[in-house]
Amino acid sequence: MIIIGEKINGFVPKTLEAIRAHDDEYIKYIAKAQADAGATYIDVCAGVEPEIEHETMKWLMDLVQEVTDTPLCIDSPDPQVVVDMIPYANEVGCLNSISLEGNKCDVILPAIAGTEWKVVALTCDDDGIPDDPKVKYEIAKKIMAKVDEYGVDHDNILFDPLVTTLGTNQQSFLNFIEAVELIKADFPDVHFTSGLSNISYGLPYRKAINMQFLSLAMAKGMDSAIMDPTSRDMLAAMFATDALLGNDSYCKNYLKGFRNNLFGPKKD
Amino acid sequence: MIIIGEKINGFVPKTLEAIRAHDDEYIKYIAKAQADAGATYIDVCAGVEPEIEHETMKWLMDLVQEVTDTPLCIDSPDPQVVVDMIPYANEVGCLNSISLEGNKCDVILPAIAGTEWKVVALTCDDDGIPDDPKVKYEIAKKIMAKVDEYGVDHDNILFDPLVTTLGTNQQSFLNFIEAVELIKADFPDVHFTSGLSNISYGLPYRKAINMQFLSLAMAKGMDSAIMDPTSRDMLAAMFATDALLGNDSYCKNYLKGFRNNLFGPKKD
Repeated sequence: MIIIGEKINGFVPKTLEAIRAHDDEYIKYIAKAQADAGATYIDVCAGVEPEIEHETMKWLMDLVQEVTDTPLCIDSPDPQVVVDMIPYANEVGCLNSISLEGNKCDVILPAIAGTEWKVVALTCDDDGIPDDPKVKYEIAKKIMAKVDEYGVDHDNILFDPLVTTLGTNQQSFLNFIEAVELIKADFPDVHFTSGLSNISYGLPYRKAINMQFLSLAMAKGMDSAIMDPTSRDMLAAMFATDALLGNDSYCKNYLKGFRNNLFGPKKD
Repeated sequence: MIIIGEKINGFVPKTLEAIRAHDDEYIKYIAKAQADAGATYIDVCAGVEPEIEHETMKWLMDLVQEVTDTPLCIDSPDPQVVVDMIPYANEVGCLNSISLEGNKCDVILPAIAGTEWKVVALTCDDDGIPDDPKVKYEIAKKIMAKVDEYGVDHDNILFDPLVTTLGTNQQSFLNFIEAVELIKADFPDVHFTSGLSNISYGLPYRKAINMQFLSLAMAKGMDSAIMDPTSRDMLAAMFATDALLGNDSYCKNYLKGFRNNLFGPKKD
């Protein structure tokens, strides 16, 4: 699984508070915790006013890179900021994100053509996020035309079909899976990710929904998640599912994750 | 989901202790707790010497029926004991179990022909439990020939394809699912259940494996489980999965389960 650690995000109230207060220690702490829990990339999103976004991103990236070699996932609603930040990354990482909104594809894709940088691709456009999986698929096809136009490897694309909230749409998971299956059929080499906690928005005991969503989506080919890797329950679900799906010989990874105190009753 | 509450079973050490001590209160307590948690059937298995099995079963059944109207699942390795106990059940319930072992089909199936009694059907025979899902399917076909011979409705059969332990067999879940799919293709009206905790035997933090197994198996058509319904984590997984799979309009059942304190942080 490609785990994108989601905690350093200015749209998370607690993180925004730390950003506003220039709390270096908190940022380093959540960076290190996510790396130790097995994050493949550490997402960094400032969530601040445009005037201070570059300097804030640079500050956050430096802090993360001070405590871990885990590559960054450079995240901004502004594609130019995303591209501007690439030179400050020590390791080849991931960008977050392209979609058919505005000029995102045309700014970001040429910057990563011929490199090993990965990019999250959201199935939305200037009209917003469609509900219909077939519309998501049409958007994905247009994004892939841009991907091919700029010569970016399919293996570097992580589609996020933007799952909707289960509380208001009973078909939420089924639509997500239909979008994955439609896209996968045409583009077998791309990856699939999800900012998965959206599915449980507004419902109580969200982790139950999030955990089972992770499991059911992994069974359908989702091989990445934008999540909190320090959530012991989510990691338990991930390791267990990987073993159940036949990807973990003699449960070696499951056993190692347990021994390394990544899930299960907490050992201090 | 058809939930068979598994706790009143003499093969569970704590329950056997209560049976040996004639501890009426403990048996009534776990009967009521399972009924309150939503069990469809309360399994009753004495797990004692043959000489005292009839009287022990009768005592257990009476205790359960004293505290709940939830139907029983009459469970014994001896098919004659199973059939002998039917008259002591107040409600039509379930029998546990038939297989191709010995004369189980020929003793139990005629006793339920033309009734609404359900029966668990294990895919094993006198040679034991096969690993190969195709062999399980062949056994299932022979069991179904007996089911048809005795005129029992397919809807009254709950196949348990006897999942093996994941720790020693990486294909454990995939084999289980293959058996379900093979049987389902030929016999679309039968149900599928599983004594699901077998899959995590020998592994740490078993509930992670059990919960994700429940979820992944439900997605493949398992519509019953032999489980502990008082496990809040298992119920959370079950309600969440049902909602994710599109079976719970506006998450009404999920919300009701949460409000009724069946899962989530415990409210006393």
